[in-house]
Amino acid sequence: MRTAFHEQLDALTAAVADMCGVAGQAMQDATQALLAADAALAERVIGGHDEMMFSVVQAEQAAFTLLALQAPVATDLRVVVASLRNVADADRMGALAMHVAKIVRRRHPAHAIPEEVNGFFAEMGRIAVDLGNTAKDVVQSGDPRKAAQLDLDDDAMDDLHRQLFGLLMDPEWKYGVAAAVDVTLLGRYYERFADHAVEIGRRVVFQATGALDDLI
Amino acid sequence: MRTAFHEQLDALTAAVADMCGVAGQAMQDATQALLAADAALAERVIGGHDEMMFSVVQAEQAAFTLLALQAPVATDLRVVVASLRNVADADRMGALAMHVAKIVRRRHPAHAIPEEVNGFFAEMGRIAVDLGNTAKDVVQSGDPRKAAQLDLDDDAMDDLHRQLFGLLMDPEWKYGVAAAVDVTLLGRYYERFADHAVEIGRRVVFQATGALDDLI
Repeated sequence: MRTAFHEQLDALTAAVADMCGVAGQAMQDATQALLAADAALAERVIGGHDEMMFSVVQAEQAAFTLLALQAPVATDLRVVVASLRNVADADRMGALAMHVAKIVRRRHPAHAIPEEVNGFFAEMGRIAVDLGNTAKDVVQSGDPRKAAQLDLDDDAMDDLHRQLFGLLMDPEWKYGVAAAVDVTLLGRYYERFADHAVEIGRRVVFQATGALDDLI
Repeated sequence: MRTAFHEQLDALTAAVADMCGVAGQAMQDATQALLAADAALAERVIGGHDEMMFSVVQAEQAAFTLLALQAPVATDLRVVVASLRNVADADRMGALAMHVAKIVRRRHPAHAIPEEVNGFFAEMGRIAVDLGNTAKDVVQSGDPRKAAQLDLDDDAMDDLHRQLFGLLMDPEWKYGVAAAVDVTLLGRYYERFADHAVEIGRRVVFQATGALDDLI
């Protein structure tokens, strides 16, 4: 039978996992808004971040309460501390989706990006939602093989980001400086989104192996 | 007389404060490397980040040990948890200085930025070192008036960032797309550096007031 403590810990883990999924969905919506110059969808992503911030505060309070009232040690303590950090990463993933949506809002009714790079962002958005869902799975299952999938997706994201950067640096770039600035920032947001998902995955794996140096 | 626990907590606080100062110094060096296209200095900043990562792991272990062995409650628990988060922000500030230095390395022997924007980056570097030193003071003293100074510096940084963005968006921008991409990324790095310093300041102040919702 699970103790009340472990039930609370499981609820915290589930909340953190959900946040990863929500952040992935937000990045998917932001990407769709970007590709379609859809201001209404962009506003929904921006508004959705407030809900996410509410979940963040709740999860952090739950973690804090567990520390204060239960004084966990060993593996349990590692899980609580890792949860606190995972919440911060998932929060940041949601904020990055919001930043994408804010660029859509700033440029509306124009498209923020030239059609030529739509394919890059469609693919980066697809990877982002994958990263969100995989991070969710990893947090729930603690499965190192699933965490390895995060690294593969991150490599794919980095690869796209490099190609996009090459396109920007090409003297043939013909969309002007303003579009280049937007594409630069957007590329950075997707890249950082992937970094945070990978961080979550690594933390969960190291938490399972108990390697303190790498966990925290 | 201070207990051993409080001595350890003070040592942790001092370590976190030092990290803020080190990150500010790294951003100052990175800025100087940027303005002078000084590859050797850029390499020192990049190498210095490894030392910072070592300090980060040590501080995190110290915090974890305090949680595991002392099971602090109330204010003491808040200080330990806030320290864990402050370490993450200071770590990120150091990483952003490294990112600036990496752009210097990538463009060397050329200057990464056109001379026209040197003044912006000189000023953003000056604010960054101020932010690092003020964050250090705030962590050590817990003084809310000093934390308010972080907000003022952040406003000044945002203002410079906005002006820089305006310059990039100006059809008169004559330095091409590659320089615009570098300036965009660099501007973002300084802006984020300031955000992290402000986060540290807010956390310290809320920790002092004990407002849990805002602290964590």
